[in-house]
Amino acid sequence: MQARRCDRTPWDDGRTMSNPLTPAPAAAASPLVRAARGHPGASPPVWFMRQAGRSLPEYRALRAGTSMLDACRDPALITEITLQPVRRHCVDAAILFSDIVVPLVAVGVPIDIVPGVGPVVAHPVRTADDLAQLRPLTPADVSYVREAVRSLVSELGRVPLIGFAGAPFTLASYLVEGGPSRDHARTKALMHGDPGLWHALLGRLADIAREFLRVQIDAGANAVQLFDSWAGALSLADYDAFVLPHSRSVLEPLADAGVPRIHFGVGTGELLASMRSAGADVVGVDWRVPLDEASRRLGPGAVVQGNLDPALLLADWPVVERAVRRVVAEGRAASGHIFNLGHGVLPDTDPDVLTRVVALIHSLSDE
Amino acid sequence: MQARRCDRTPWDDGRTMSNPLTPAPAAAASPLVRAARGHPGASPPVWFMRQAGRSLPEYRALRAGTSMLDACRDPALITEITLQPVRRHCVDAAILFSDIVVPLVAVGVPIDIVPGVGPVVAHPVRTADDLAQLRPLTPADVSYVREAVRSLVSELGRVPLIGFAGAPFTLASYLVEGGPSRDHARTKALMHGDPGLWHALLGRLADIAREFLRVQIDAGANAVQLFDSWAGALSLADYDAFVLPHSRSVLEPLADAGVPRIHFGVGTGELLASMRSAGADVVGVDWRVPLDEASRRLGPGAVVQGNLDPALLLADWPVVERAVRRVVAEGRAASGHIFNLGHGVLPDTDPDVLTRVVALIHSLSDE
Repeated sequence: MQARRCDRTPWDDGRTMSNPLTPAPAAAASPLVRAARGHPGASPPVWFMRQAGRSLPEYRALRAGTSMLDACRDPALITEITLQPVRRHCVDAAILFSDIVVPLVAVGVPIDIVPGVGPVVAHPVRTADDLAQLRPLTPADVSYVREAVRSLVSELGRVPLIGFAGAPFTLASYLVEGGPSRDHARTKALMHGDPGLWHALLGRLADIAREFLRVQIDAGANAVQLFDSWAGALSLADYDAFVLPHSRSVLEPLADAGVPRIHFGVGTGELLASMRSAGADVVGVDWRVPLDEASRRLGPGAVVQGNLDPALLLADWPVVERAVRRVVAEGRAASGHIFNLGHGVLPDTDPDVLTRVVALIHSLSDE
Repeated sequence: MQARRCDRTPWDDGRTMSNPLTPAPAAAASPLVRAARGHPGASPPVWFMRQAGRSLPEYRALRAGTSMLDACRDPALITEITLQPVRRHCVDAAILFSDIVVPLVAVGVPIDIVPGVGPVVAHPVRTADDLAQLRPLTPADVSYVREAVRSLVSELGRVPLIGFAGAPFTLASYLVEGGPSRDHARTKALMHGDPGLWHALLGRLADIAREFLRVQIDAGANAVQLFDSWAGALSLADYDAFVLPHSRSVLEPLADAGVPRIHFGVGTGELLASMRSAGADVVGVDWRVPLDEASRRLGPGAVVQGNLDPALLLADWPVVERAVRRVVAEGRAASGHIFNLGHGVLPDTDPDVLTRVVALIHSLSDE
């Protein structure tokens, strides 16, 4: 890839991207993968959830006239959108441009992503008959993703690519509610009211999510993240009984795939240890729990990802810098730390602030 | 009041509402107030956040053709809507029908409550000049509330009335964002970017909230609840630095008013001890933290309120009954427990289920 502005990446051995004569370590030995394996460098690797997307003018220009789902199924667009923030911010990882509903759409579930609303499901899944629309995912269903990942791995060189999928609970919430929900009331009512149907639904969704991740790993992704965005809506008891077995069924079989598995949700302070036990090498933490406290809850050997409050990026730089330094310091309590936000980049974020955050974090290895 | 269907309330001494010959203790000595003071009875007193409202057909009938803000400023409507759930469910407390923006509207802030959206602020507060619209609240500004409380106290007899106000942070979020917000980004940016303006804003809001509660107490309210609905969006460090002093400035001066002060927010598992330290006699807990764990976090002598997941009320009765019994059992770890939901009643809730929950809880004192 052309990384004109990224004249330095913080490899442990001091090699830089701008010096092509230096032998490049593989992406699989990148700072991100090494931190995920519990081998932290002098400063944490950094990427941002939703780094590819609405905060970037070049993204908005590229997306003009193309629907979200069409963009997510076009290998050239996926590749370019995924690369944009890597070029601009010099982050230590790319995250595949996609959406958690892409594999559901790929198996024929009628879903549209409505601007300003989110995924809208034409026929919500609430009965055993509705389950029929959830057939297994095959690699051919998402050939555009496989093609994009291959192209990206080639373009990115030693910058690792993170693949991702939505976790069974969060996918189920969209399917059962018919769209985004603040309270997940129908989802919880189904979970408690018809546990048999619930577990059948989550079993199918786990199969789909796992296969979607496997396609990305087989095509060369260097890490994967399982997003359980809304798991924090659940009590620990409900999470353990109704969700954890299915998230585990996504992550555990991928243990031998050789790539780190990151697991993230919002507002999951009570769930962190359970989420780790699902088979996560790295647990993403939102800003509500400091990373040192999160490490304590996760137990020995834990690797954390997070957790700058994305809203803070809208404040002045001295506020941002202080908060970044605090997050880095708190992350030292863990066995490894991947710097990220506590949730996705907000659309109004000034992209120059993101670039500056990356530069600041990289500079910390010099201090 | 006429309490035709409430033929029994669980006074500790066995007196019943249906026996008028029995001397009635004052509402101030009701099970709710006693539990709040750390003197629990054989079963917890119970009320529901948003018990007066959209789940009740008689409420929807009464509200037809009347805007939310008009209803909140009509003493007869406030009184009748507040009484409806007490008559129907036989709950152990009434909660004043109002809205957290009512005192802001009363001092002249141009706010509308838009159905399906929530409060919308015509001119968001983001500068020192904008602060000028926040003049102090005087009792005359909310004479309709004073009148309604007086009427309610007379109608309710020994059923206590809970007054309420929105807490400074949650009010500020509406004012700064201009309406409901998922991420509170502008609010947090102001908080960190201009702490002087932030504290001036929250100071004014604290004065308004405290005076609004004082009007209700002076008119006869037997308890008050300070709603900091969105405080759970903050880290503990931000809460302590930017919010706690102002919530304290609402609650502490009311210590000598002689009524219990309840303090509640959603997703506040990390903040519970701080919220108690604001001057709360009772801390409301959502369903994410079990009440026994919440009691541990709150420390010795804590009284808790909560915490059934309102979404569970949409499941079948055996699920509801099991969950209610679990919550009651977990509440025994505290020095007092007021049964409630972990957030407000959802609009789709079957009101008969709420009635049945109240009856179940009252029946527990017989077991």
